[in-house]
Amino acid sequence: MSANEKQKEVLVGVDFGGTKILAGVFTPGIELLGKSKLSTKANRGADAVIDRIARCIRDAVDECDLDLKQVKGVGIGAPGAVDPEAGKVLNGPNLGWKDVALKKELEKRIGVPVFLDNDCNVCTLGVYEVELGAQPRHMIGVFLGTGIGAGMVINGKLYSGFNRTAGEIGHMVIDANLGEDGKPACRTFEQLASRTAIFKQIKDLVDAGRKTVLTEMLGKDLKNLRSGDLRKALKKNDKLVEEVIRNAAVYTGIMVANLVNLLNPEVVALGGGIIEALEGQMLPVITDTAKQHTMPGVSKGIRIVASKLADDAGITGAATIARRATAGSSN
Amino acid sequence: MSANEKQKEVLVGVDFGGTKILAGVFTPGIELLGKSKLSTKANRGADAVIDRIARCIRDAVDECDLDLKQVKGVGIGAPGAVDPEAGKVLNGPNLGWKDVALKKELEKRIGVPVFLDNDCNVCTLGVYEVELGAQPRHMIGVFLGTGIGAGMVINGKLYSGFNRTAGEIGHMVIDANLGEDGKPACRTFEQLASRTAIFKQIKDLVDAGRKTVLTEMLGKDLKNLRSGDLRKALKKNDKLVEEVIRNAAVYTGIMVANLVNLLNPEVVALGGGIIEALEGQMLPVITDTAKQHTMPGVSKGIRIVASKLADDAGITGAATIARRATAGSSN
Repeated sequence: MSANEKQKEVLVGVDFGGTKILAGVFTPGIELLGKSKLSTKANRGADAVIDRIARCIRDAVDECDLDLKQVKGVGIGAPGAVDPEAGKVLNGPNLGWKDVALKKELEKRIGVPVFLDNDCNVCTLGVYEVELGAQPRHMIGVFLGTGIGAGMVINGKLYSGFNRTAGEIGHMVIDANLGEDGKPACRTFEQLASRTAIFKQIKDLVDAGRKTVLTEMLGKDLKNLRSGDLRKALKKNDKLVEEVIRNAAVYTGIMVANLVNLLNPEVVALGGGIIEALEGQMLPVITDTAKQHTMPGVSKGIRIVASKLADDAGITGAATIARRATAGSSN
Repeated sequence: MSANEKQKEVLVGVDFGGTKILAGVFTPGIELLGKSKLSTKANRGADAVIDRIARCIRDAVDECDLDLKQVKGVGIGAPGAVDPEAGKVLNGPNLGWKDVALKKELEKRIGVPVFLDNDCNVCTLGVYEVELGAQPRHMIGVFLGTGIGAGMVINGKLYSGFNRTAGEIGHMVIDANLGEDGKPACRTFEQLASRTAIFKQIKDLVDAGRKTVLTEMLGKDLKNLRSGDLRKALKKNDKLVEEVIRNAAVYTGIMVANLVNLLNPEVVALGGGIIEALEGQMLPVITDTAKQHTMPGVSKGIRIVASKLADDAGITGAATIARRATAGSSN
């Protein structure tokens, strides 16, 4: 291959979940050239979803006036428990997947080497490599969306634990209350600060008779409520939305303090749809609350930041995985 | 030095906190030969405490009919933030220590190389190397005593974080409750399950008029209440103590689940004075609760165990540190 042709080599990063597939085409220096989006249609089963992933990759490459032959590698972030070495999604509850050989099946369809990892790991790696220049030794990425997940970089490497499921912070209990009978009534972080939790709280308060501009905007049943609507309501100083978002930010701040007390990372990076839509309102509350609940001396020099990559963290990190895996090789 | 004399080389492990100093003499294979105990007298200041540590080491060595010259190295676990490379206790709130050059000062007094780390790290290393045969890649040690702390082994190595303060699980919030004003009323793990918390709950319940055999044993003010008294009360089926201990065990189980969801370690080892005294009552509740709150699939193959090293975990781990640091060298 000539030097000229080699310069046209690109990487593709794919991020997919229960709702949508996103594919981005990147230079070897991880600059985004173009991207494409498709709905997942998880109900059609794994084979159909993998077909759609392949189609989304072809669309993105075509969008950039490139050819699949110029793609050196494809990185993918998949939801759930993933075995990167085996190239399998072991368990993807959002997709209804069990033991799906995603790497093998996708390689069959596109003829390009595929590499995968868990979606939160991939997002964390994107933030780590591209936004933080791979500088901190230890960092945690916390992603607030429909659900909540985290990824960890420890000693400069993604950490995934014994069963490759590390980072399930959405399931961590931060409001445990034992009743008279000693039985705990527990609320997890996801039940307090995810998009699902925020929307439920708003709907419950509306049902209880509280007023909000959201019902004027969307009707009484708040159908099709989206994160962006919350931002609009906040601009109109809507008390109900302010209260719910502030509470979610306080709980997030407590979780960040818990992570800092336990793992003492150099950086905690916040991302995901909720942070993307509401960073301005939430970040100051998160950082203030985190400071209050961090042990003195523990938080010195530790940065709590919102990721600027926003919705592109997944495809960026996925491209980074492909770059790492194909480094030194050539088509 | 002759081969015969070399066989008499030993290691010393020291564990000290705000209350007591414990020194143990070990073979290079980390078998305990003998030990000694002294009160800390932290109020006399750092210099006096270091004198007492030196005395405790001399006592332990003498107890084994050995000489300080036969000690190849001394390992120490110190409470608070410790810089192992600099040999300093950066911040020891229980002792009132700031920036104490413990390694240098102790070496002056005993003429033997000294190596230190945080006490929870040292206890974790003791459990890891001696009880678990250094087998798991990732493990967490959780120690319930007057306070609560943890240590982590990640990829086979002690993990201490950016500011060397990782493992402060006592300060993690597991009962956050936002009031109407959005201000959180938070209780930390230490406020729910440490010896201090358990004793306070018992005293509060006695003050509120609840009956317990403890008042028959110790008088109405429960002066000199110790963990062993709780075990005696449980043998007499004391309802109040049963309730308080069960609640502490439930909170501990929730914390263990949180750690498993986040870090997905192979082993969680529980230790410290509370576990040593009440393992039989607490461990089944801890493991049951942890299972209930762990995400499905996450806990497969993960072991939750009580350390058998009990109060000797600290001196054992400290001796292990000395062995690692002096490996290959000779007096």
